[in-house]
Amino acid sequence: MRDAYFDQLDAIIDDLVAMTALVRTAVGRASEALLTPDIGVAEQVISADVDIDAAREKIEDIAFELLALQQPVAGDLRMLVAALRMVDDLERMGDLSVHVAKVARLRMPEGAVPAPLADTITQMAQVAQDMVAQVAEVIADRDVEAARQLVRDDEEMDRLRKHEFEIMLSDDWEHGVEAAVDMALLGRYYERIADHAVSIARRLVYLVTGEKPHSED
Amino acid sequence: MRDAYFDQLDAIIDDLVAMTALVRTAVGRASEALLTPDIGVAEQVISADVDIDAAREKIEDIAFELLALQQPVAGDLRMLVAALRMVDDLERMGDLSVHVAKVARLRMPEGAVPAPLADTITQMAQVAQDMVAQVAEVIADRDVEAARQLVRDDEEMDRLRKHEFEIMLSDDWEHGVEAAVDMALLGRYYERIADHAVSIARRLVYLVTGEKPHSED
Repeated sequence: MRDAYFDQLDAIIDDLVAMTALVRTAVGRASEALLTPDIGVAEQVISADVDIDAAREKIEDIAFELLALQQPVAGDLRMLVAALRMVDDLERMGDLSVHVAKVARLRMPEGAVPAPLADTITQMAQVAQDMVAQVAEVIADRDVEAARQLVRDDEEMDRLRKHEFEIMLSDDWEHGVEAAVDMALLGRYYERIADHAVSIARRLVYLVTGEKPHSED
Repeated sequence: MRDAYFDQLDAIIDDLVAMTALVRTAVGRASEALLTPDIGVAEQVISADVDIDAAREKIEDIAFELLALQQPVAGDLRMLVAALRMVDDLERMGDLSVHVAKVARLRMPEGAVPAPLADTITQMAQVAQDMVAQVAEVIADRDVEAARQLVRDDEEMDRLRKHEFEIMLSDDWEHGVEAAVDMALLGRYYERIADHAVSIARRLVYLVTGEKPHSED
């Protein structure tokens, strides 16, 4: 009985890592759909979101079963509650990838990203994807150092977003209101993906060290 | 011992309702700061966010203590876990109110909202505030009907946001790129406040009826 319990606890970590891999694929493909641009890839991201939702449901079911039947205490209990909150973050990152894919789809067959923003958006997409990859390591290895690195990566995302706005609001901007609005929201989606990565990292740090996570916006 | 336990469970509901009241004030004042416009009120909202964070910490501390010491089962356990996820939603609604207040502050002493959008933004602010008020009732009374009403209110928010975009993207728009970008993000903040209200409502419906909440974006 207790062995099955520990197996199930381990299985939740594995499932979280697997869910993070799905999210990483979603973020990567959404960015590819946007920057190539490629309508087929955009549609894939949108339709694959059900897999992320299914991964969430599976983890929730196991976690609630463990909570109800095994009455875990102390560290195990905190881990299960943290897992339930991490799936909220991960599911949201999946939803945000769908938003990115929909921005891509909106302007097909032309690209949604005006030329002056191509470099900055490409970098934002890369930082987001790297952060999600890092999240998987943070969860799998309970790696506090990797978690702290995510907070620093998030500063790079903020810097890129500021730069994005400078370009859109400069006198040289020739792409009009609609493209600027699209790109402002797109930048927000990438920023939020990064914020959720940081949120997961902070939950992990709290779990391992007892340091309280701080509010994120 | 058990009496103290039930008192603490009740206290968590009261604390959630009190935290929701803080969020309602934040949403209401942020909108007032934006639409009056009033820099003092904007600053109030920004500095009062620590109270929302403190309310969150208090609820988390009590919930974790109950989970660890009382080993609640079945309905009580699900309620505590739901409470922990609801505080995530509520805290985020507070952060989004701060974002609204910062949009207000950014364009002082002039108003941030261009005249053609004043009506629509005023309505979005009102729907958001009403939804947060409804959230308090949903939690206090475990009111499934009020929870379902929130899903319908959210459709009104979506309709208003579409209308906002029609105005900004019409040929008559004379307020340039910067105001459009501000207003697009502002619209997103209100939409997200409404989404979090719906998320709390769905968690409550799940708690009371066992119906699974669906993914929200």
